[in-house]
Amino acid sequence: MDAVKAILSHRSIRSYKDKEIPAETVDLLLRCAVRAPVTAMGHFYSILVVRDQAKKDQLRDVCGGQGALRSSTYFLFCADFHRTELLADALGVERGIHGYTALVIGTVDATLAAQNLAIAAESMELGTCYVGSVLHKAFTVCEVFDLPPRTIPLFCLAVGFPNEDPELRPRLPTEALVHLDRYREPAAEEIPAFIDSIGSSFAGERPVSRSLEGKKSFVRGLIQGSWWQSGEEELRKALTRQGFDKELDKELR
Amino acid sequence: MDAVKAILSHRSIRSYKDKEIPAETVDLLLRCAVRAPVTAMGHFYSILVVRDQAKKDQLRDVCGGQGALRSSTYFLFCADFHRTELLADALGVERGIHGYTALVIGTVDATLAAQNLAIAAESMELGTCYVGSVLHKAFTVCEVFDLPPRTIPLFCLAVGFPNEDPELRPRLPTEALVHLDRYREPAAEEIPAFIDSIGSSFAGERPVSRSLEGKKSFVRGLIQGSWWQSGEEELRKALTRQGFDKELDKELR
Repeated sequence: MDAVKAILSHRSIRSYKDKEIPAETVDLLLRCAVRAPVTAMGHFYSILVVRDQAKKDQLRDVCGGQGALRSSTYFLFCADFHRTELLADALGVERGIHGYTALVIGTVDATLAAQNLAIAAESMELGTCYVGSVLHKAFTVCEVFDLPPRTIPLFCLAVGFPNEDPELRPRLPTEALVHLDRYREPAAEEIPAFIDSIGSSFAGERPVSRSLEGKKSFVRGLIQGSWWQSGEEELRKALTRQGFDKELDKELR
Repeated sequence: MDAVKAILSHRSIRSYKDKEIPAETVDLLLRCAVRAPVTAMGHFYSILVVRDQAKKDQLRDVCGGQGALRSSTYFLFCADFHRTELLADALGVERGIHGYTALVIGTVDATLAAQNLAIAAESMELGTCYVGSVLHKAFTVCEVFDLPPRTIPLFCLAVGFPNEDPELRPRLPTEALVHLDRYREPAAEEIPAFIDSIGSSFAGERPVSRSLEGKKSFVRGLIQGSWWQSGEEELRKALTRQGFDKELDKELR
């Protein structure tokens, strides 16, 4: 499928057929992932392909049992400085990339590869869904997959044959996300449109109808969400477990 | 162009024709960007389209004058919690997303949108190049674009009409980047292949020929690079300027 068409018709898929993706399709998707740009040839990421049913069940339980995690295959994306460290040791040098730079750049490299995989999959009429709760459960995910030091699990991309055909979900108005030459401060009058688009979001196949008060309440819930705070605690524990606390010069709680 | 074909033929383009991208193409690219998945409907990113020549010159100077920054148009991607804060204020609630979670998720949302834009552009036979030095110059970039608090510039995507036709650049072997069900520790015998692929990288049109010692020396340079440390200092200054130091519970130096 044409790239622009695939991109413009993206919907996250949360219900999948009970049917495996053929191994050669998985291979092609991975070839697409690894052709993504990489920062300074560092390849600061790793992909775990999760096909083993017991591991899939574990990950689904950890991430709150959501429907997306009943897909054929999960791709778990991690920032990875472990491989860099092995390479640095072999060459007798010190790794220069550390700290916040490492956290951001590892995330960029992993996400570029992931979105290559997602767009390729959707262009083949497979369904995809990002599972962000992996980050909020990073400590447990490190344990489940016995991840080595200096790696951090970021998100999972679920891929499979779609069992639903949802409509496009809303987005903030483009003029709120895009600025020309300088950052344009949103005017107070634009806020209702933000509430309307976020408040009209839905996870099933069809838009839900909410009153203005219902939309406001929905948006409040997303902004406040207690999972943000509990996820931050867990991410800090994971960063400590994986040796990033030294990188960040602080004792993470 | 077919999505898989566009993805598999990606090369970063560092030399561009002196020709503007039509405004309607820029609009279509931005429509592609904003259709990317977003975390919890948060849209934790912003895109600055940089077309003003004076701003382009400033950004090129800040980022070390590289060739990619002679393209028609730059798209500067930022993690953005400023808009979220305005929305939270309007709704009388506290924002739940903070700290490392915010830094990672803002980076994920921005990068998903960026890679949509990049793949769409390449499928139209435009050239693209990510400019990662934006992160290493984050403090200065915040000043140049007068970015509001709680935004962080991450990278720039240069897009224009290619004036070169480079070969595909090397990547680490797929089996080094991809693991099945659990993280596979690379064996010592695999390290030479890592050195070979990274050490064979090139920035011009054709591969360069390097001796084994030349490759090792090249890889050592990338791993150690003094720009990592100076960039980390600058990023910390930027995180403080933008109010992320409170988010991260520490006084960043």
